[in-house]
Amino acid sequence: MSLREQLTSMLEQVEGAFAVMLMGYDCIAIDEVQQGAAGFDVQTMAVEYGTVIKEIRRTIEVVGAGEMEEITITTANSRMIIRVLNDEFFAAFVLSKEGNLGKARYLLRAKALELVEAVG
Amino acid sequence: MSLREQLTSMLEQVEGAFAVMLMGYDCIAIDEVQQGAAGFDVQTMAVEYGTVIKEIRRTIEVVGAGEMEEITITTANSRMIIRVLNDEFFAAFVLSKEGNLGKARYLLRAKALELVEAVG
Repeated sequence: MSLREQLTSMLEQVEGAFAVMLMGYDCIAIDEVQQGAAGFDVQTMAVEYGTVIKEIRRTIEVVGAGEMEEITITTANSRMIIRVLNDEFFAAFVLSKEGNLGKARYLLRAKALELVEAVG
Repeated sequence: MSLREQLTSMLEQVEGAFAVMLMGYDCIAIDEVQQGAAGFDVQTMAVEYGTVIKEIRRTIEVVGAGEMEEITITTANSRMIIRVLNDEFFAAFVLSKEGNLGKARYLLRAKALELVEAVG
């Protein structure tokens, strides 16, 4: 499967998901797929969060709390779950507040290796 | 109950919790209680995360994704859950990887108002 096909398949499997994306730490989206209307700019959010994730990784290194694996951010009307894939990439789901976060978490973990290979 | 008593009570109720703290956005801990050995500097971590949380709030504002409520950060050997209490404070639990995150989340939500009142 191509990267686009994989992301599409992941998006279709998660109820309440607005978008799934693969990002580099340079905050450039490698690829992303969207469905429905999030009501805000999903891509801008991902890019902005890229900066934040770099900060969090640095913090974790500073305090020696072990390698970063996952971040979830809940706002009044959305959820985002971000999974570190390797030193270059992270993947993220953006969901509605009622979206299936557990499924999104599972897919990000289960498909991590395939996603990285598909970028290659 | 004093703030210290409330935090102590919360910490005792969550299996696998290393620390619970109330922080200001100026990254100063209002108060915190710890138990067990996290293996890293919990307070430094909280202070560093304070900066990150400010960044995330700003990001969420920029993209219009609604008010920030909660962040969880998972590393190779710990979990941290941070809940925004109001414009001045946030509260956070630091747990082991096997700690009861659901209980920590519940307590942060349920005790939010009491914690804010106890600061005053």
